[in-house]
Amino acid sequence: MSVLADFEATSVPVDQARALRLEIEDFNRSYAAILDEGRVEDWPDCFADGALYRITGRENADANLPVGLVYCEGIGMLRDRALAIARTMMFAPRYLLHQVTNERVLALAADGAISATANYALYETLVDQRTTLLQVGRYWDRFVRIDGTLKLRERHCVYDSLIIDTALIYPV
Amino acid sequence: MSVLADFEATSVPVDQARALRLEIEDFNRSYAAILDEGRVEDWPDCFADGALYRITGRENADANLPVGLVYCEGIGMLRDRALAIARTMMFAPRYLLHQVTNERVLALAADGAISATANYALYETLVDQRTTLLQVGRYWDRFVRIDGTLKLRERHCVYDSLIIDTALIYPV
Amino acid sequence: MSVLADFEATSVPVDQARALRLEIEDFNRSYAAILDEGRVEDWPDCFADGALYRITGRENADANLPVGLVYCEGIGMLRDRALAIARTMMFAPRYLLHQVTNERVLALAADGAISATANYALYETLVDQRTTLLQVGRYWDRFVRIDGTLKLRERHCVYDSLIIDTALIYPV
Repeated sequence: MSVLADFEATSVPVDQARALRLEIEDFNRSYAAILDEGRVEDWPDCFADGALYRITGRENADANLPVGLVYCEGIGMLRDRALAIARTMMFAPRYLLHQVTNERVLALAADGAISATANYALYETLVDQRTTLLQVGRYWDRFVRIDGTLKLRERHCVYDSLIIDTALIYPV
Repeated sequence: MSVLADFEATSVPVDQARALRLEIEDFNRSYAAILDEGRVEDWPDCFADGALYRITGRENADANLPVGLVYCEGIGMLRDRALAIARTMMFAPRYLLHQVTNERVLALAADGAISATANYALYETLVDQRTTLLQVGRYWDRFVRIDGTLKLRERHCVYDSLIIDTALIYPV
Repeated sequence: MSVLADFEATSVPVDQARALRLEIEDFNRSYAAILDEGRVEDWPDCFADGALYRITGRENADANLPVGLVYCEGIGMLRDRALAIARTMMFAPRYLLHQVTNERVLALAADGAISATANYALYETLVDQRTTLLQVGRYWDRFVRIDGTLKLRERHCVYDSLIIDTALIYPV
């Protein structure tokens, strides 16, 4: 098994699921562009106030262990993290590139929250080196709509395997 | 050349092609989730009764050779295969991840069958090992609609190259 | 930073952006199929008459340097290039596969030109060899509509890193 405990797929009306899927695709592509273009200071704006963000391995996720490699709760922690990363990137420049695919809408909660998932591949290129596949994995997301715009209330980045080659882990 | 002999692109009305493309994307993402989540027992449900499923190399496909690495004809053979794989996975756990992209609708047949194609990358991660790109390739598909739901009547998985590292080949 | 100087995102009405995004996805998939199926003689048809096509590294692009690894201006240069490549492929056969993802519409110009971007991964397989990730990068595109059909007026292929293993660089 490899679905987070509370991300079971339930029935969503086809037309609604289609419209939400396209909107979530747009969201994920803007999110990826922020990270790939090094605009990490804009990254926290993708999240709702009390949002949870974590990066964890599939074994951990399958065992339903809450903690992982990275764990942020609340927009304050996300902003702190973004700031630390922005500073680091000045000293160790690198190029990132996300390919985000396979978006699926899984469920709609009574409070309007949208559960969704997507697959990602994250490539890193250091100066004058070959491109490395840093990780492949899945996003497990809970979206809410704030002033008409989708924001993440939860994003669990669950990687299949990880090449840990940096002191500071970048957002995924 | 690298198009299977009977998968020529013909003219499909734009609106119809767009709607079918989005529906096939949904199908392919559910299909990939079934395999990536290890729910291989649900995999045969993606196919119509007399369906043909095969995995073959691009050289074979270009030469129009029918047989390949894996060849299943009929839902019975697909169910047998799923069962064998489910047993194997208990002894040799591994994580799979599909990125399916580039879906295109190629043709509509008089009997309603839809010809389509997509590109895939398949990653495998064994316990405590780096993620490996197992194969990249293309799906060449014939869909039919059964009780309103798309099912595969044919799926040809045509890989560019293959890393054969398992006694039993998993579905792609 | 890694956005080409004149590819800033501006506000595009949501419905229009969505329709254009789907249309550009269709375009990019046809474009990729042409290259992946070895139909390189059809590749110039994706461009408008005076089109600019180039392949360049991200460092060059970030520094706003115009020239790169490949630079073609005008449909004549594109046709010359296609012809040279078609000849080469007869002597050194190889399989290519593109995964194009993350399409985004960035801006609409007063003259109707559409600025857009997408991410790509390009895989190459030589006979009896493992598949190699040749490059990952981004397309930075300017589309125009000619007789109802999208054509490229500009395509900048900006790679993160490049494995140069062929005398002649193939289109991306």
